[in-house]
Formats: sequence, C-alpha cells, structure tokens
Amino acid sequence: MSDLDLLKTLSRTNTTKIVLFVMDGLGGLPQEAGGPTELEAALTPNLDRLATQGMLGLMHTVDVGITPGSGPGHLGLFGYDPLEYLIGRGALESVGIGETLTDLDVAARGNFCTVDHEGVILDRRAGRIPTEECARMVGLIKDISLPGVEIIVKPVRDYRFAVIFRGPGLSDRLNETDPQRTGAKPLMVSPEDETPEARFTAHLVNEWIERVAQRIKDQHPANMVTLRGWSTKPAIPSVEEVFKLKAAALAVYPMYKGLASLVGMTLIPDLPDLDAQLSALKREWNSYDFFFVHHKYTDSRGEDGDFHGKSREIEKVDAVIPRLLELKPDVLVVTGDHSTPATLKSHSWHPVPVLMYAPGTSRANPDVTGFGESQCLKGVLGQFRATKLMTLMAAHALRLEKYGA
Amino acid sequence: MSDLDLLKTLSRTNTTKIVLFVMDGLGGLPQEAGGPTELEAALTPNLDRLATQGMLGLMHTVDVGITPGSGPGHLGLFGYDPLEYLIGRGALESVGIGETLTDLDVAARGNFCTVDHEGVILDRRAGRIPTEECARMVGLIKDISLPGVEIIVKPVRDYRFAVIFRGPGLSDRLNETDPQRTGAKPLMVSPEDETPEARFTAHLVNEWIERVAQRIKDQHPANMVTLRGWSTKPAIPSVEEVFKLKAAALAVYPMYKGLASLVGMTLIPDLPDLDAQLSALKREWNSYDFFFVHHKYTDSRGEDGDFHGKSREIEKVDAVIPRLLELKPDVLVVTGDHSTPATLKSHSWHPVPVLMYAPGTSRANPDVTGFGESQCLKGVLGQFRATKLMTLMAAHALRLEKYGA
Repeated sequence: MSDLDLLKTLSRTNTTKIVLFVMDGLGGLPQEAGGPTELEAALTPNLDRLATQGMLGLMHTVDVGITPGSGPGHLGLFGYDPLEYLIGRGALESVGIGETLTDLDVAARGNFCTVDHEGVILDRRAGRIPTEECARMVGLIKDISLPGVEIIVKPVRDYRFAVIFRGPGLSDRLNETDPQRTGAKPLMVSPEDETPEARFTAHLVNEWIERVAQRIKDQHPANMVTLRGWSTKPAIPSVEEVFKLKAAALAVYPMYKGLASLVGMTLIPDLPDLDAQLSALKREWNSYDFFFVHHKYTDSRGEDGDFHGKSREIEKVDAVIPRLLELKPDVLVVTGDHSTPATLKSHSWHPVPVLMYAPGTSRANPDVTGFGESQCLKGVLGQFRATKLMTLMAAHALRLEKYGA
Repeated sequence: MSDLDLLKTLSRTNTTKIVLFVMDGLGGLPQEAGGPTELEAALTPNLDRLATQGMLGLMHTVDVGITPGSGPGHLGLFGYDPLEYLIGRGALESVGIGETLTDLDVAARGNFCTVDHEGVILDRRAGRIPTEECARMVGLIKDISLPGVEIIVKPVRDYRFAVIFRGPGLSDRLNETDPQRTGAKPLMVSPEDETPEARFTAHLVNEWIERVAQRIKDQHPANMVTLRGWSTKPAIPSVEEVFKLKAAALAVYPMYKGLASLVGMTLIPDLPDLDAQLSALKREWNSYDFFFVHHKYTDSRGEDGDFHGKSREIEKVDAVIPRLLELKPDVLVVTGDHSTPATLKSHSWHPVPVLMYAPGTSRANPDVTGFGESQCLKGVLGQFRATKLMTLMAAHALRLEKYGA
C-alpha cells in the first residue's frame, strides 16, 4: 500500500488545529568552522522556548544529499513524495506567476529569442532582454486568439514567459521547440503520442507560434519564441482527500500560493507581509483545520549571501510567534522547505531544522536548550524525510486511526 | 531482492540463543512536560544495568507517525513488514480467541443483530448483548453442520463472534453481509471473483446463515447474524524459513499466541503468569533457538490511563530479569510492540524503546545510564523500523552470513 493510500484509510476528522510555518531556505551553515549557523546566530527567545517544550529533528525534504527546488521542497512538506509527484516546468512557471491551473490547461515555458531573416536562431535568449521588455513583447502577442481555446500569456522574468492553452481535449505530449543551439531553426511542435488530443494540440500550438512570429518579426532583439516544459495540472490528491484537512495557505509570494493551490489549499488573498499573515491567521482560525504560513525572505537573504540579514529575517518570525501561540494550536511546526546557506548563496541539500510543538503528545527533548541545527541533531524526531512530516503532524493532532487491530 | 529473501539467503544455524521480551505498549509519555515517562518513572535496576552494558534505540513498529494495532505491531517485531503482510480481520479475530488457523480455513467476524419479522435490521449489534448472552447464542448454533466442511463458531465479546469454515476448496473472496445500516436486510454472500472456490464458499455460507436464522429466529434481541472480514490464514513465511530459527512463544493471552502461531512459532501451553513464563523458559531452553516472551499488562494499565500502574508492571518485569540472565542468552531484547501512553489511554505512534543486550557483539552506548525513552534517543541503535529488529538480533547472535564476498 502506498503511503498516501494508507493515510487516506487512517485519517479522520478532529477539531484540532495544525500550523505549518515555513521559513523558506531556513537551514544554513556556519560562516566559519565551529561558528553558529544563521538560525543559531539569530536571537530567537520564543522559538528557543518552544524547542525546549516541543520536539526537534532534521528533515530531508527530497532525500539525503538532494538539493530541493521550491516545488519539490514544498510538495515534500505537504506530504507528497517529490520523487513520485512531479510538477512539469510549464505548470510550475504558471503557478509561480500566480496562475491557478485548471484541468483544461496545458502550460509551457516560453523564451523570446532572436532569429535571422531565414528564421535561424542567432540568440536563444534574445540578448537576455530585461523583464520590462519581456512584458512589452507579451503585450504584443497576448490577444492572439484561436478557436476552441483560451490562451493566457504572461511575462515571467528577463526573456522568459509562460503560456497556458485552456480548453477541452488538449494534451501535453508535445516536443520542445527550442533546438538547444544557435544556427538552427526552432522546431515545429509534433505530438509525442498518437492520440487525437496530442495531434490537435500540436496543430493548435503551431498555428499560435506562426501568428506570434508574424506579430513580432520586425521587433528587435526579440523576434521569435520557443516553447518547452509542456505540462498539465499535476494529478495530486488534495490534502483534504488524504488527510481530511480543510487547509488554508497564507503566503505572500505567488509561487507558494500556486504550490499550495496544487494540493487543494484555499488561498487567503491580500497578504503583503508577516503582520497581515498573522492577522489573517487569527481571522480564519475557526474556518480551517490546517494553516500553511510562508515567509520568503530567509531564502532571499541566503541567496544574497547575507548571513546577518537572514538571521534578522528569522528574528522577525520569532517576534510573531507569541501572536501565533495565543491561538493555541494543537500542533505547530516551524521549519523550512530546504536549506539556503548564505555561504553558498543557493539552495542546498543540508537537512532542514524542524521544531514541532504539540502540547500533550510530545516526548521530552532532553539536553535541548534552543532551536538550531546542532540542537535539532539531539531532537527526539531524529532525521527523517519530509514525506513523514504531515504524518507526524496528523498523528500529534490525534487525526490518525491506528493501523490494524 | 526483498528483505526477507535476502535474510533467507544469509541466515544460518548456530547454537546461540535469542530472547525477545515484549512488554506490550511499553512506550509512554510524561504526565507533565519535562517529567519522566512510565518506563523512566519505574525503578528498574536490572534493566538499567543491561542498558549500560548493551545497546539502546527507538523503534517504529509500523512506520513513523503510524499507530500500530497489536497484529501489525507484532508482525513488525517478528521481522515482517506490516504494510506488506496483512492479516484479515476474520483471521485476527480467530487467532485472538485462541484458534490456530490452518491452510484449509476461511474465517470471518460475525455480529449478532436484531431483525424484524420481514428480516429488516433494527439493530446491527442486537442491543450490544453481553458476552455471556453471546456465548449462549453461539451455543444454539455451533452444532450446525454442512457436508464437506468443519464449522467452528466461538464467542468473542459482546455481540461479536468468530466463525471458521474449514475444508478443501474454500475461498475468502466473498462480500460482507452487513449492510452497514439499519432499515435494510442483511446481504446475501456473493463470490467476489469467478473461481469455483469462491462460488462454492458463497453457496455454503448462505446455507449456513439460513440454518442459523432458522435456529435463532425466535430469540431476543439477537435473532440474526451478519458476517464480514473474510480471510484465510495469511501467507507468511515462518521464522524458521526466513531465519532458520526454532522459535517458541511464551505468552499468556490468546491474541499473542495466535500471532506467534501465524509465523510458525511453537506455543508453550499453560502459562498463567510471568512466573510460569520464566519457569517454562528455563525448562524449554535447550529445545529452541528463539523465545518470544509476552507481558500484556503494561498495555492494559496504559489503556486504563494508570501511569503508576504501568510503571509497576514494568518493575515486575525488571524483577524477573535476573532469572532470565541466569540462562545466559546470547541476545536479549526488551521492547514493546507499540507505545500506550497512560496520558492518551490508547496505542500511539511514538517510537518504542529498545534494549538489546548482546555480550560480545555490542557497541558501546556512551552517556547511557539506564533504560528509558530519553536514554534510547542517545543509543547506538538509533531510530529504526521494527522490520530491522529481527535482522539485528540474528546478526548479534552470529546467525547471518556476510553478504557478497
């Protein structure tokens, strides 16, 4: 029996409340050997107190030694094995700019590129045009319409855009049109299987590309497009199906709202910052069982290589913990979706610190004095894969029946 | 290669002796944050000394966050993945009342129920008749015989009974007859596949139900039966096949004898209490390689919510440890099949403390001063799934060859 099938049979409703508070890229590294990590350097009296009363552990969001992207990292946190549940690049790009995918959608990543008068690619990224120029280019093509489908085109960043074809009978079994080198023409779209849906979609997309080419052929440097990462909305059972949880997402950034929407969470709108997120949490407390709260800037400062800036972001979260505890959650988890050590200026594979506060169902955490990577190594939760996190939260919230008699 | 296939190829005979001492529901929780668990509160000088000389760890008998029932919990302890080897409810109910299943058996759980004069169910549990009334009702139907099969009917508890159809050519691919609601008649039994065995068994069981209905139609409130949980003896390779171990079970309760019998252990009869279990262990020492000793009352006191009572049961086990050590076991494991914290009054998912004493093959257990959950967190065995326990015991008993050259 798969893990999710097992959880479907064991999960039950209850009145308990669960909060999953994600500081993006929380895990870190010391600046010098023997020194503290960003989390350990931060002054976090509230989280430290919770650590001594709750349980700590270290979590591999994808698997040991694997550096998670944001998509797989969050899927892992939400209980889905990211090595089993894949989100296509087109789908991820779309949810990343705030587009909620429907079951009628086929999404792709697009690049603006530069071609010569014979259509041969001179620059696969159109001189890396800035985002503003990308937006202007999208403005030139976004009203192209074809019968039977809705077409949504949106700028992403630099030369990259997202396109969604929405309508009945579409397929993502299409080849990529980027030849992956200059000196060649963009490829035609062909179906990758023999279904009428794939043939129809290929025909439709080729038609769209031809219209786009007509519209922008006199622009410079972006005068053509390539498409790749064809994907439909991923087939993921919702957290309600698996865990019988009514779940709400309180995130600022579109990417994380999008990922939450893929697993069936309700998106709480208009949350510009932590203060708004905490106010919304209080306002919505009686309407949901499970709350995903996302803080982005720990990752941002890590990517910047700003060790102390990352510590300060952690301190901002620590400062709102008392507001969260006033709501008396039955289970509160504070963790990350991956590590982003400032010293590496990038996501990393290092296991992520986990703090689980579950009054009434917690084992003692001997020798723990605060929240940090070294403390987590001594925690009762041990080291585990993120796919077990939702199971542990549900268990500690008394939302799982026993297995067998 | 599956774990069991690997173990089959690696296991070898030896003269070493292994004892698996299970305190049912051993794992616990503190009564108040920071306090001791039941095991930590118990005075256990003998187990504490073994902990400093042996190795500790924490064990997930089914998987992280999953609360085990007794069946899956023990299958895990015996080395079988409880998510792979399933015991049907009928089979579990039968072994639970002391019936040893044979390869000819199809077992079901039965409910006595109340029907009106048209056969429509008024009460699916016949007013929850007491066990004595259930036994009287079973007395009215247990001599019903049909050609070609032996039929065994036994009371379980309240309105529940177990029935076993024993004979050649039977199948458990049958539907349940309980319509799961009042206001409907019990369903006929139908085959769930097209085999002659399933058709024959359905025919036979319908005939039996008709005879039962005739016999008890004038009784009150129990005047009809429903059947469900159809199951055969589970196909589990014996511990002798996998580990080349001659194994004996020394248990007081029928359920645990039954589970041991399913994996091919020899049941030592007439063991009313711990004293008798220890005497039998000494008496049988030269006749077997592996001894499963089961103590029930730690779980019972946990289910009662009796924290100190559970500690006292642990102390009773501690007191017999010297008698066990006189036999000089090569490997002694003291553990549980799951946790039953008195604070929760039920089985729980918390990992179970494990003590493995294996003079001659133990790694040092630094910083360990006794046996308890917090100490186990520091143990050299780490956290592991129960399916690895038998492998570890066999390894420490020098009963596994190396893998590869």
